[in-house]
Amino acid sequence: MKYDLERDNLIEIVKNSDYKELEFLADDIRSFLIDKVSETGGHLASNLGVVELTMALHRVFNSPEDRIVFDVGHQAYVHKILTGRADQFDTLRQYKGMSGFPKSRESVHDAYETGHSSTSISAALGMATARDLQGENYDVVAVIGDGSLTGGLVYEALNNLGASKTNMKIILNDNGMSISHNVGGLTTHLSNLRTSSNYIKAKNSINSKLDSTSVGKTIRGGLHATKDRIKHSVIGDEGSLFEHLGIKYFGPFDGHDIEGLCNAMEASKLINKPVIIHVITTKGKGYTWAEKYPRKFHGIASFDIETGDIVSKSDAPSYSKVFGETVTEIAANNDKVVAIAAAMGTATGLGPFYDNFPERYFDVGIAEEHATVFAAGLAKSGQIPVLAIYSSFMQRAIDMIIEDICLQNLHVVFALDRAGLVGADGETHHGQFDLSYLTMIPNVTVLAPADGDQLKDMLDYAINELDGPVAIRYPRGSSVGEHESLGEFKGSNITMSEGSDITILAVGAMLDEAKKAATELRAKGYSTGVRNIAVVKPMDLSLAEIDTKLIITVEDNGLNGGFGQAFAAYCKSAGSKADVMTVAIPDSFIEHGSVSQLRVECGIDAASIVKGAVEHFERKA
Amino acid sequence: MKYDLERDNLIEIVKNSDYKELEFLADDIRSFLIDKVSETGGHLASNLGVVELTMALHRVFNSPEDRIVFDVGHQAYVHKILTGRADQFDTLRQYKGMSGFPKSRESVHDAYETGHSSTSISAALGMATARDLQGENYDVVAVIGDGSLTGGLVYEALNNLGASKTNMKIILNDNGMSISHNVGGLTTHLSNLRTSSNYIKAKNSINSKLDSTSVGKTIRGGLHATKDRIKHSVIGDEGSLFEHLGIKYFGPFDGHDIEGLCNAMEASKLINKPVIIHVITTKGKGYTWAEKYPRKFHGIASFDIETGDIVSKSDAPSYSKVFGETVTEIAANNDKVVAIAAAMGTATGLGPFYDNFPERYFDVGIAEEHATVFAAGLAKSGQIPVLAIYSSFMQRAIDMIIEDICLQNLHVVFALDRAGLVGADGETHHGQFDLSYLTMIPNVTVLAPADGDQLKDMLDYAINELDGPVAIRYPRGSSVGEHESLGEFKGSNITMSEGSDITILAVGAMLDEAKKAATELRAKGYSTGVRNIAVVKPMDLSLAEIDTKLIITVEDNGLNGGFGQAFAAYCKSAGSKADVMTVAIPDSFIEHGSVSQLRVECGIDAASIVKGAVEHFERKA
Repeated sequence: MKYDLERDNLIEIVKNSDYKELEFLADDIRSFLIDKVSETGGHLASNLGVVELTMALHRVFNSPEDRIVFDVGHQAYVHKILTGRADQFDTLRQYKGMSGFPKSRESVHDAYETGHSSTSISAALGMATARDLQGENYDVVAVIGDGSLTGGLVYEALNNLGASKTNMKIILNDNGMSISHNVGGLTTHLSNLRTSSNYIKAKNSINSKLDSTSVGKTIRGGLHATKDRIKHSVIGDEGSLFEHLGIKYFGPFDGHDIEGLCNAMEASKLINKPVIIHVITTKGKGYTWAEKYPRKFHGIASFDIETGDIVSKSDAPSYSKVFGETVTEIAANNDKVVAIAAAMGTATGLGPFYDNFPERYFDVGIAEEHATVFAAGLAKSGQIPVLAIYSSFMQRAIDMIIEDICLQNLHVVFALDRAGLVGADGETHHGQFDLSYLTMIPNVTVLAPADGDQLKDMLDYAINELDGPVAIRYPRGSSVGEHESLGEFKGSNITMSEGSDITILAVGAMLDEAKKAATELRAKGYSTGVRNIAVVKPMDLSLAEIDTKLIITVEDNGLNGGFGQAFAAYCKSAGSKADVMTVAIPDSFIEHGSVSQLRVECGIDAASIVKGAVEHFERKA
Repeated sequence: MKYDLERDNLIEIVKNSDYKELEFLADDIRSFLIDKVSETGGHLASNLGVVELTMALHRVFNSPEDRIVFDVGHQAYVHKILTGRADQFDTLRQYKGMSGFPKSRESVHDAYETGHSSTSISAALGMATARDLQGENYDVVAVIGDGSLTGGLVYEALNNLGASKTNMKIILNDNGMSISHNVGGLTTHLSNLRTSSNYIKAKNSINSKLDSTSVGKTIRGGLHATKDRIKHSVIGDEGSLFEHLGIKYFGPFDGHDIEGLCNAMEASKLINKPVIIHVITTKGKGYTWAEKYPRKFHGIASFDIETGDIVSKSDAPSYSKVFGETVTEIAANNDKVVAIAAAMGTATGLGPFYDNFPERYFDVGIAEEHATVFAAGLAKSGQIPVLAIYSSFMQRAIDMIIEDICLQNLHVVFALDRAGLVGADGETHHGQFDLSYLTMIPNVTVLAPADGDQLKDMLDYAINELDGPVAIRYPRGSSVGEHESLGEFKGSNITMSEGSDITILAVGAMLDEAKKAATELRAKGYSTGVRNIAVVKPMDLSLAEIDTKLIITVEDNGLNGGFGQAFAAYCKSAGSKADVMTVAIPDSFIEHGSVSQLRVECGIDAASIVKGAVEHFERKA
């Protein structure tokens, strides 16, 4: 390593070194990223792709005065290194450590916090508008990947940006691939722009132009001419989609040529209007395995740098794997079943479905709203759509679940992966709201499996036995429970054990914490029973008749609108005798860490349940 | 009237009459619409604009085998007339009467139910995909207005449609105006297409082409040539945004020329790919007042046909009016305040704000997601954005409220109009979920005024005193309460009266029902107190200490996740002695009717409260 990334003033180096020197720095940053992420796990491929791009951003723009807004945010590692956080990479995504996403509390350079896709242009337009109202004059730059462009929010933002005519830059980081394979008419359009025979070698065109002119007005005039020439040479007489919306298109540029990128960005500063700079990058750039398997190295656990193999892969099948295999089996016997993914087909386990039934598999891009209404249309015409979407991403389409699916009472199955606490991805990714946003909606059945076997049964039940909307929500990770077999799922909750003092009602995969707690409580002399709450909605009202002294509800959803609150309220209205204690995620955002650490922090682990119960009886005594 | 719209088989007439004859039918339909809507109120201007368009749809396509999917759906009146529902127009939007939106329970011709904007292309693509999977061969047609095109969901759908290459038609009903004034780069693009010097006179081009050829293959060949010519003559060498996404663009056509429309649609049937037919219509066509004031006649109460005046306009200022005037006053003294509307600036009362502070007013189109993230960007840079959005439309951006506003704890004020039961617009428009979807989110303060004076105070409190996210939710209609003055709002709930048997906790504008109920209960011998719950979140936990025998919560939100459920659960967990009865909208979708009728149906009116309380004490006795 030529540079000491943890000690050197990297912003100063980026701003003042010559381009040749910056290539060495880029190499060092890549080595550092590979080294660190191989230890902690994290998002690698996308960050390797934006090393030069991020350096160019910090050379040309002056953060924090100029605002850099990263879309999604998992590609901000290089930005974190350059802005003085290299020394925190050992704690990346770990409990109380550095987040894998931009966080204002970490640095003034993190102008906007993200985690979900496609927000950067809207946020940047808000900042640019505030700047204009305040009579300020800094730059606002949104950095967005081509995958994020499939989200409709981007289009709402572009439409408003084009009309606003304000000075704002968009850097389109086009690696020709979103997390899963990119889809749609837009991809073709970008591809056309990308593969144009007139592909710009920025160094050779803009740069030579810059060299041949001098300063001030001359440069400005020269760049204007260059820009027009570039635009026309690249997009010919067709006009790009961006230009139709009133945004100046500029590119494409080689995303690994720092000098060319800096020149393009410098040129864009002279245009006092909305500009989009199209940059072509290679995901995984500089690390063989990541270039070869960019999807695998998108978000990855600890791995061996030499072989690219993941270090300690659990043998236990994940819920995602069980889901994907089961729904594929079911589809083999039921040709009405179709599967829909929103850019996360592989991650949600739908690989086997696609392999077996490509004509019944639909990856709609990062477009949860469309996924949901598309499913409604399919269901309205007699198919049975299964949507596999992460719990927190499903928040994007709550209106469509209400208005399109539940109001029409359509038979659509939502497979909500990553429900509850997700661990390292943290605040933006926890599925802590799904029970709340689902149970508020009429007509929907809400199920929560405690293990992979139950998930299998539930999928069969939801697809082949139920009608109307069904949501099955399950956590990230291993689907092998520590509990005894639950037996066949027949649409109802299961009594695991009985007790006369305490009954614990454990929603879905919280069953294991509940069972651990029950064991400890029994050891302390409390007769404790446990029930598996597999059916969250409709609520089994007979649960309110349980006559133990205390009933404890346990769930990995927020308290407000969750199972426990609804149950406790029902007990209160119904005049039930038993006391009720609701164990749930508190009403706050939860940072990253391991799931077990976060359960402790949230007070939803076995020990917290035991402590709460003991204190309850002590108060009563 | 030449035709008896209630008795004649209009579909047959539309399919078999000559075009001249259809012009008479169009005239009769317009007279009928003006006549009926002047009595019942409803959506008029948009329906007057699509008379010929809807007739052409039913002449060329064979509903219900061919699926016609109306976007938003308030422009489906002509479709309802043609499909045998003219005789139900006296009950339009009335309790137990015909809905103002497509409803499958009313007719097999209502292929898909809507109410919220921008869903038609996604739904139609789902249907077309199901058709393809099932090996069927019918047509699927989405009918969408230019206003709906500002919603990002449309773009997600177009992106997928373009890639799918399936046979699907989009009829773009372009009246150059969404509900409020249309905004954005897209508007400019459509306007460019519309005002092209090569505007197609369909009658003169396609039609003459059709006449000169004969049938079968000859037509097919002829149309192909025509289509290409049309495309090129209209959109020249620029290419339209639609073509960039892989959708064949076709138009623009005169939307009031039935023959031309039919020819265009017939031609589109020969193209086995995604096609968009761009049709120019005049909103309010054929009724002077509606053509002159299309916004006023978008959704209108009963009116005088002669003068265009609304028949019985209440003198009481609506909540919307109070909101708009107050936020304008506040903005005069606080230049950080900016206002954001999503295509409903006038309807939400923001007219005065725009008049006074146009540079601080932003109408983003039907784009609630962008509105919210744009607000986040503005807030992050020091402005105080006030978003005025209907409660049910805000469902579109719940993820952004969570991830962009509340996670970053930004000072943004949501003014949620049309909270609770809205009346005639029915199922899709009731604001019955806002307390649930808001209170599940950490960091947000949720307020609910009981009258216009309290709303004024709350706006000042939310903007000038609070920090972080605040939502104020208030109902449609008059802001003048029937209760005595609440005094100044200082951030807490207000005790209106005390009682020893019963305390009614009335959320926001439910105060009047609560007070009526209290009066009746007192007459029955129950000592009854009433509190105004102005602050829904954070919940005032001291309410659980109220020691009357019964506490009744009253709200116009769904039970699940609402105030009452959270309160009852807290009382249960805290071991409060009082019984709790939760009065809320039941867990179902509520049809249209007057608000008072619907309150009775939902059991949230004064009489239901009294009945529930009396029964409670009888059970206890």
